[in-house]
Amino acid sequence: MSKVAVDVYGGDNAPEEIVKGCAQALLEDRDLKLVLAGKRDEIERLLSEYGADGTRVEILDASEVITNDDVPTVAIRRKEDSSLVRALRATKEDDEICGMVSAGSTGAVLTGSLLIVGRIANVMRPALAPVLPTIDRGSVLLIDCGANTDCKPEYLAQFAVMGSAYMRTMFGIESPRVALLSNGTEDKKGNELTHAAFGMISAIPDVRFVGNMEARYILSGAYDVVVSDGFYGNICLKSLEGTANTVFAALKQEIEGSFRAKLGALVMKPALRRMKHRLDYTRTGGACFVGCGKVVVKAHGSSKAVTIAAAIRQAKQSADVNLSPVLAEALAKVDWEKLGRV
Amino acid sequence: MSKVAVDVYGGDNAPEEIVKGCAQALLEDRDLKLVLAGKRDEIERLLSEYGADGTRVEILDASEVITNDDVPTVAIRRKEDSSLVRALRATKEDDEICGMVSAGSTGAVLTGSLLIVGRIANVMRPALAPVLPTIDRGSVLLIDCGANTDCKPEYLAQFAVMGSAYMRTMFGIESPRVALLSNGTEDKKGNELTHAAFGMISAIPDVRFVGNMEARYILSGAYDVVVSDGFYGNICLKSLEGTANTVFAALKQEIEGSFRAKLGALVMKPALRRMKHRLDYTRTGGACFVGCGKVVVKAHGSSKAVTIAAAIRQAKQSADVNLSPVLAEALAKVDWEKLGRV
Repeated sequence: MSKVAVDVYGGDNAPEEIVKGCAQALLEDRDLKLVLAGKRDEIERLLSEYGADGTRVEILDASEVITNDDVPTVAIRRKEDSSLVRALRATKEDDEICGMVSAGSTGAVLTGSLLIVGRIANVMRPALAPVLPTIDRGSVLLIDCGANTDCKPEYLAQFAVMGSAYMRTMFGIESPRVALLSNGTEDKKGNELTHAAFGMISAIPDVRFVGNMEARYILSGAYDVVVSDGFYGNICLKSLEGTANTVFAALKQEIEGSFRAKLGALVMKPALRRMKHRLDYTRTGGACFVGCGKVVVKAHGSSKAVTIAAAIRQAKQSADVNLSPVLAEALAKVDWEKLGRV
Repeated sequence: MSKVAVDVYGGDNAPEEIVKGCAQALLEDRDLKLVLAGKRDEIERLLSEYGADGTRVEILDASEVITNDDVPTVAIRRKEDSSLVRALRATKEDDEICGMVSAGSTGAVLTGSLLIVGRIANVMRPALAPVLPTIDRGSVLLIDCGANTDCKPEYLAQFAVMGSAYMRTMFGIESPRVALLSNGTEDKKGNELTHAAFGMISAIPDVRFVGNMEARYILSGAYDVVVSDGFYGNICLKSLEGTANTVFAALKQEIEGSFRAKLGALVMKPALRRMKHRLDYTRTGGACFVGCGKVVVKAHGSSKAVTIAAAIRQAKQSADVNLSPVLAEALAKVDWEKLGRV
């Protein structure tokens, strides 16, 4: 029986969609227990509304909510009675809890995880790593997509090790192809940071480093792990999201602008829906905050029930495959001090 | 009568599509003269094949070609008889030539432009700036998208001034909205570089600075100029390109996978074509290398004739509106030494 903590008051659609997602997850998996942090009365009401199995639910009463307007470091310290802080504290202290899910403010989730849950030994900086669907129906991990700006080269080298271990453990890819996000594929491309990281990653024997890659091919299926500083990893991810939305919006405008197109779209509807579904990376769960002592899954702020249920599955699966110990072992194999002198 | 130089042997489709584009441009504009650099015999043959008006064409015989495999700095110095170097030298030396177009290796075009054509007074670093189509049928300038990695904050401040002047002059936008590409919209978001640049750009009176922006909204129409370091500007642009291609590829796969979808797509064909056309930023020409002494337009490596013709128009228009003197004036208004101490 695995136990996952959920921050019920994080995200644009909290608490309704979060509790609905919890109910779905409980229904799908008889071996799952949930610890829900938030306003007890409302949670109880919603659980019964969605027909959840209450015998596998514990509630941590929390009256406060952390929003995107809060300054993360301040909120984590001051809002002791918030759903996020309660969920994180339970994750740290309760040995039975294997991981945590939140769709709340990214800054607060990351700061809180670092301060309360803590890092795996040897991890310099945990990284936020979403799994994106590729055009050949595979998956690619982007690490880091926003937890760390102004990275040092050794952080990127650790992202390579952790990302590789993640895709091996979670997706069963024996020897994941790891690439460095850059402005061209040639070895000499890059900036000061990636030039230094390139040398370090090349020197790690357990990482199958395939060199620099271009953002253009991130969804091509040619890579399993893409390593990046969190600042431009974030830009890459958001550019990707924004472009997909723009293409769909332009398509919608063109459809609405002509009767003929409307007719065609009606016939094409199932195909259009399948396409959108394939490219929607949020449906498979959230971004793992890789390198934390216990698994923390950050779901998209706009998550609906189906994504929350997937994020809970993801947290449980990560624990089932011993993600944290595997990461710790992969990192311990590398002599980080020696690598820094490469 | 304006004269534009063209590197006929740059790009994936050289020389055929380049000469074809030149022929189109000459046909469209009776006030245009072209100086074509490349292999004389072949150019003459292609000009007559495409029915170009030879009386408005000068040929600079050049036997060598610079490719993507050449190291830019080496190629520019050693391949004196290449089409690119000949075109650049003519642009520098011939007062009648107002600008230059090349679809060749980006690195070689940028390096060659810097070394041979030179910079406008006060410009620290020229920047490569494509104009992208927004969802509301407007345009946004991304500056820099790849000329400069590891920028200093003052470079970004200059990009803001030059980008603003560019959109005012070329697109008639009276007070362009200038934003800084970042990992969030709040003032505190960003990395060390953007934090420093934020303060500087805020202090320039002639720039309408609207703060940080997210890559997600680059095509939203909310911004006229997006300022960025060339490394992550490149990542943003390529992520955008790659995602658009992936969406179209996924759509194609879904269409081909079902008879019903094939039928719908047939009916929707004009709308699908209009959508693709709207999002294709290469059709409007190339990226201007903003800050060079004379206008240099870098067309996409995969450019066909229609793009080359547009790039030639763009170079001529830039000269017609006195882009370089306008940029020089805008830069001269700012006390760069004082700004560096802000």
